[in-house]
Amino acid sequence: MSLYGGIEGGGSKFVCAVGTGPDDLRAEARFPTTTPTETIGRALEFLQEQHAREPLAAVGIASFGPIDPDPASPRFGYITTTPKPGWAQTRFAGQIQRALGVPVGFDTDVNVAALGEHRWGAAQGLDTFVYLTVGTGIGGGGMVNGALIHGLMHPEMGHIAVPHDWDSDPYEGFCSYHGDCLEGLAAGPAIEGRWGQRADTLPPDHPAWALEAHYLALGVMNLILPISPQRVIMGGGVMEQRHLFPLIRREVQQLLNGYLQSPMIRERMDEYIVPPGLGGRSGVLGAIALAERALDGRAPALR
Amino acid sequence: MSLYGGIEGGGSKFVCAVGTGPDDLRAEARFPTTTPTETIGRALEFLQEQHAREPLAAVGIASFGPIDPDPASPRFGYITTTPKPGWAQTRFAGQIQRALGVPVGFDTDVNVAALGEHRWGAAQGLDTFVYLTVGTGIGGGGMVNGALIHGLMHPEMGHIAVPHDWDSDPYEGFCSYHGDCLEGLAAGPAIEGRWGQRADTLPPDHPAWALEAHYLALGVMNLILPISPQRVIMGGGVMEQRHLFPLIRREVQQLLNGYLQSPMIRERMDEYIVPPGLGGRSGVLGAIALAERALDGRAPALR
Repeated sequence: MSLYGGIEGGGSKFVCAVGTGPDDLRAEARFPTTTPTETIGRALEFLQEQHAREPLAAVGIASFGPIDPDPASPRFGYITTTPKPGWAQTRFAGQIQRALGVPVGFDTDVNVAALGEHRWGAAQGLDTFVYLTVGTGIGGGGMVNGALIHGLMHPEMGHIAVPHDWDSDPYEGFCSYHGDCLEGLAAGPAIEGRWGQRADTLPPDHPAWALEAHYLALGVMNLILPISPQRVIMGGGVMEQRHLFPLIRREVQQLLNGYLQSPMIRERMDEYIVPPGLGGRSGVLGAIALAERALDGRAPALR
Repeated sequence: MSLYGGIEGGGSKFVCAVGTGPDDLRAEARFPTTTPTETIGRALEFLQEQHAREPLAAVGIASFGPIDPDPASPRFGYITTTPKPGWAQTRFAGQIQRALGVPVGFDTDVNVAALGEHRWGAAQGLDTFVYLTVGTGIGGGGMVNGALIHGLMHPEMGHIAVPHDWDSDPYEGFCSYHGDCLEGLAAGPAIEGRWGQRADTLPPDHPAWALEAHYLALGVMNLILPISPQRVIMGGGVMEQRHLFPLIRREVQQLLNGYLQSPMIRERMDEYIVPPGLGGRSGVLGAIALAERALDGRAPALR
């Protein structure tokens, strides 16, 4: 059985692992995201050490973005226009590939987390689904017909427009690009900005949660209607508040108002909108799954 | 070269054709949609007559919906829960397949129109794009990674939620399920309901069009962000008002506000949001293209 390396490269921390799947992770390293040189250097050092011990067949990278996911582009494998200081136009996958000499797959953090859920988590056996993460921002990825969603760039599901009733919720939204887009109204900083305290300090009966569920339900509905996913997986820090799930499920049903005549939506919402099967490990395990695909050609890779 | 039959089965009219592509349509029939027995009977009669003259290799059907597009379902090939009198639970593809004995592909009218645009129209060479039709309703289809979007059911892009400023636009929306969803605010009947006259009688400088472009731009943005299409094709009766295109393009750019750093969106909007390459024939030609795919196994089909 081939051994794989995975890098979950997030904006605040990196998680690196080596293994073959969730029950066989042989080594792991976590460290904060500092400069590209230092951070990618540490990831590389970890993988090289592991590679010397037992050869890795391929590596997968789940990267914060925006990135260039187009294998035909000279910038494939780069982080592109991020506002994160020092990281714009950073060659990422290429450094790993050059040093290790194995195929390196590269995609957005959320698409790779979606892949992890597909391989070992809550999306096993599905070919069309959405993975949404709600934390300091809102991001989404997923598959249609068994392939990760790409296209012109990659999905930016957090920035969709949703109805905002200014009378009942005068909070203006915090997105620097769009103000009151879904992320601007419903990511963690919006909860804190609106109520003046951290989301995880608000009790479950605080009105913040009904409003949060309302916005997230609008967002989820706006993903269900165009993509027709077989399941919607919701992860990230805010979704650790598990009491949000029943609120969101009920509100999505109310918003759709019987329009989609699927038994899954009408009767089995508990199975339709769900937390990640892999908990907080969707990303790093997804990177292992991406490495598998990079090796057998199902995912674009630097070779 | 194989000869194919196509049926564009719409809620108000049926268009049937036989041929191999846009430059080789050998026969065509159009008739109003009445009862299922009469209407499907006329389509079948036309195809049988053509089939007797020169055998058809396969047939494609573009159907109004909702439909069951799942080839594993016993109801594959049916129109399902439509409110259209007499048409709920109508076996459609099965009747054609049984009578002609050739593979019959079956999908939504908008997905099939998208396929037509992919085969011979404005989406040639793309693998991820959206086709949106704005007429008496709003519907959307498209491809991701070269496959038509399915999943739990099929896309229902017209019913997404969009911001609605009740102060500047007190019109409540006409959608019987959602009131002021995109379709409720921006399909043809909304223009007529809001301004008290038919859309095609409003002059190009009427304020109706700026508002219409605003809602359609919100809808298009809400499709671009989750799906990341390489192009958005907009057809249907309302989009015959070609002056809408520059308004929509400008407003989509303003709404995105520089967030998506793609040259296509920043500099080449004229190529990004476009009318159908096949004009009003996307549907029936798409049905021919679906027949091709049904024959070679790229599309699910009754066989």
